[in-house]
Amino acid sequence: MADKKKKKPQKLKARSPRGFVDRSAADIRATDEMIGKIREVYERYGFDPVETPAFEYTDCLGKFLPDTDRPNAGVFSVQDDDEQWMSLRYDLTAPLARHVAENINEITLPYRTYRNGWVFRNEKPGPGRFRQFMQFDADTVGAPGVQADAEMCMMMADTMEALGIARGDYVIRVNNRKVLDGVMEAIGLGDDENAERRLTVLRSTDKLDKFGIEGVRLLLGKGRWEGSKEGEGDFTPGAGLSSVQIETVLDLIKIKDIDEPYSDLLAGVMGVALAESEKLKTGFYELAAIEKIVNGCGYGPDRIKIDTSIVRGLEYYTGPVYEAELLFDVTNEKGEKVQFGSVGGGGRYDGLVKRFTGQDVPATGFSIGVSRLMTALKNLGKLGQDDVLAPVLVTVMDKDTESLGAYQKMVQDLRGAGIRAEMYQGNPKDFSKQMRYADKRGCPIVIIQGNDERQSGKVQLKDMIEGKRQAAAIESNEEYRAARPGQFEIEAGSLVDEVKKLLAAQK
Amino acid sequence: MADKKKKKPQKLKARSPRGFVDRSAADIRATDEMIGKIREVYERYGFDPVETPAFEYTDCLGKFLPDTDRPNAGVFSVQDDDEQWMSLRYDLTAPLARHVAENINEITLPYRTYRNGWVFRNEKPGPGRFRQFMQFDADTVGAPGVQADAEMCMMMADTMEALGIARGDYVIRVNNRKVLDGVMEAIGLGDDENAERRLTVLRSTDKLDKFGIEGVRLLLGKGRWEGSKEGEGDFTPGAGLSSVQIETVLDLIKIKDIDEPYSDLLAGVMGVALAESEKLKTGFYELAAIEKIVNGCGYGPDRIKIDTSIVRGLEYYTGPVYEAELLFDVTNEKGEKVQFGSVGGGGRYDGLVKRFTGQDVPATGFSIGVSRLMTALKNLGKLGQDDVLAPVLVTVMDKDTESLGAYQKMVQDLRGAGIRAEMYQGNPKDFSKQMRYADKRGCPIVIIQGNDERQSGKVQLKDMIEGKRQAAAIESNEEYRAARPGQFEIEAGSLVDEVKKLLAAQK
Repeated sequence: MADKKKKKPQKLKARSPRGFVDRSAADIRATDEMIGKIREVYERYGFDPVETPAFEYTDCLGKFLPDTDRPNAGVFSVQDDDEQWMSLRYDLTAPLARHVAENINEITLPYRTYRNGWVFRNEKPGPGRFRQFMQFDADTVGAPGVQADAEMCMMMADTMEALGIARGDYVIRVNNRKVLDGVMEAIGLGDDENAERRLTVLRSTDKLDKFGIEGVRLLLGKGRWEGSKEGEGDFTPGAGLSSVQIETVLDLIKIKDIDEPYSDLLAGVMGVALAESEKLKTGFYELAAIEKIVNGCGYGPDRIKIDTSIVRGLEYYTGPVYEAELLFDVTNEKGEKVQFGSVGGGGRYDGLVKRFTGQDVPATGFSIGVSRLMTALKNLGKLGQDDVLAPVLVTVMDKDTESLGAYQKMVQDLRGAGIRAEMYQGNPKDFSKQMRYADKRGCPIVIIQGNDERQSGKVQLKDMIEGKRQAAAIESNEEYRAARPGQFEIEAGSLVDEVKKLLAAQK
Repeated sequence: MADKKKKKPQKLKARSPRGFVDRSAADIRATDEMIGKIREVYERYGFDPVETPAFEYTDCLGKFLPDTDRPNAGVFSVQDDDEQWMSLRYDLTAPLARHVAENINEITLPYRTYRNGWVFRNEKPGPGRFRQFMQFDADTVGAPGVQADAEMCMMMADTMEALGIARGDYVIRVNNRKVLDGVMEAIGLGDDENAERRLTVLRSTDKLDKFGIEGVRLLLGKGRWEGSKEGEGDFTPGAGLSSVQIETVLDLIKIKDIDEPYSDLLAGVMGVALAESEKLKTGFYELAAIEKIVNGCGYGPDRIKIDTSIVRGLEYYTGPVYEAELLFDVTNEKGEKVQFGSVGGGGRYDGLVKRFTGQDVPATGFSIGVSRLMTALKNLGKLGQDDVLAPVLVTVMDKDTESLGAYQKMVQDLRGAGIRAEMYQGNPKDFSKQMRYADKRGCPIVIIQGNDERQSGKVQLKDMIEGKRQAAAIESNEEYRAARPGQFEIEAGSLVDEVKKLLAAQK
């Protein structure tokens, strides 16, 4: 038995780590097309590319991820030879802050840059939730005023439209961390001691879309059971607010989708709290300024909308936060119709560079979830179908070196004329296999040359499109072989011209 | 003292992990341009994109890196929640093999794909040696014949020329692992017991460029001291071959740069060994076939050349190996003139997919070192200078929300007309700082509107190029301010038209 086992070693299983996936040709081409369009918008807005590597020292990245209170949770970390910990970036903002701080003497502020790249999260993967995904960011560093935040919102809106998303199918929602922080100040949670609790409140309100107002109410209070009733599923501990505190917070976030000037409305609703907090006032003032600037540029509430239910999960935001939301319906895994939802967002992070430099370097920027946005565009039919023409196939009838050289020469001649072409590179023994390959691959033309044709300087061309049309009318295999549908003979010397002619005719 | 320290917490130091670097706008744009041109060649050859993620399970990657005999050395690895080890890919070939094996039932062979992406090596970084770098690969999987290797060599040659590298400035060198393996068989190292030793021989011969023929002779024999004489520097143990064995190996690799048909020449030189090894014969036969095919397609030894000194460091190659070498001189760190050298290479790896499937899935492919090739192209002046025009700058004179909105509106109008533009997003207090920003950034036009102009519906345009020309003739600051070189007033309503006109004139 032991011997037998030895003789048949267990094969290695080909598999990808959980949460990591391969990308198909169609996905890559679609992503490239999309990224090209986004880049065009960012460039027009005066942004230039800058990129950082995948790894950063762990202390430089900092711990700003939501839902990760354990050390090193959320990120992939390794220890370097010199014992320093480094981590794969979980977003493109923290590394940018490091880059700016490291080069602060050479960089002219404001520094307007964009970048796209892979980020990594060491989280539990799930449907549509990957551990490696692509983000496309734009940031203005060294921009103290909310006019920079307003510009970001307009750029997000322009990006959506450049991608073909119709006005009305998207909205950019804007809030301000200072508003929520101000409310917390007003309800007596403003001091250092309550820092942890403020974070819990922040993340609880961020769950509005997921759990609804009742869910958030539980998270702000005693906590929430995952199941449909108490004691069922996992329990998430709450922020432990009193009911008055809870209702003040809920007052803020439950105002949604109202079309009158939002900043005025907010001031009305939050009247009492407003008197209690300078921060809340500043937050409102800033939102009102953003609203005025974007409205003045023709970006009304159909495109950019103040919405105080928006939180954003990352801890480092300090002022305006904004989110691009797609409004059309899609069917989720459970078969329910739901709004597509967020495809990106960002905000002001005035403290990130300061961690390094000690000086104020105010900044604002946002991130687009590339894969998610691509899924949305596919849903809308806004990404070009895979319209790359398959290559012309030169088949292999004789496999001596001489003949192989001759086939390859045909291919090189075609390529030299700019025609996508390839020689069959599999085992050429079985000719019908070559034809099946051409068929599966969608080759428009197949080229055939046996010994007889070579001797007489001829080549057979098979028009695969016409061939398929004709073949539909043919009933038996024998008849098919005799008829050679779509196939005709040409002079070998005119190969390139004839292929060009046929490709043009097929269009 | 302790208190004092507490009050002044040590600032976090902004730094990148060793061997990881940021990429500038110019580098990113140059890389994109280069990748676009390479992609065009690969597409014309009938290859389609496919990509794999950054992580693979460590056992799927295998250990094929040169110079890494310690477990996990050479790669970055982390352990997943379920205790499985995963590693960042060190190349794009091993992950492709996993991808093919995992999808072997869906994939139509031959499978012709390309991909570019970051790979990671956990090695000691050095000048020009990074721990994260980009590769651009193309592979044909399910291709048993050397015609597929011949095609790869031609594609490498075409790629070099598509990038503007002149014929004569590059050469594709081709060898065959079977030749070197055959020589080892002939000198009695063919059996299983000598596997480790064969690897040492392989890697020693790969050092020809680095250490010269004498260095390789030492590495094949007793070993080599790093310094200029024995006992100096580190010692690398040798393969321990006898002098007859050594000279047979050296006979093979010291034939270089000879222009007669190489395969004939080889057969002559290796006459004795040839009688001893079937493998060696096969190796020669394959090289001769490749030579014939590429010559037949017009790729003579000025472009593709058989060269038995080529080894390639990776362990998984089983047949033809090939390397793209740039022949022009550059100055190295020591100030010496040296040939630029290899920018990529590859070979046949018939065993990589078989590790998973147990069935033969022969394959061949190569990899271009993107950063290295880009350095070469920069040296040759073959990459477009950074020719993206800097944005038109709208300066900020008044910072009330109303005015900010008006400035932003101008910017949006310009962008709407396709003009790259931005509003100054720094602190607008100091106007001369805004002008310095415009200057450093290379803005072609600056737009200025103070309160007076706004009231009278005017805007000031400053032509930065004409301004600089005129300013050169101005001597004092006072005169400069009075003359306002290159500056003129227009109607606010004609802003877009006037900017368009001026940009056109500047060209």
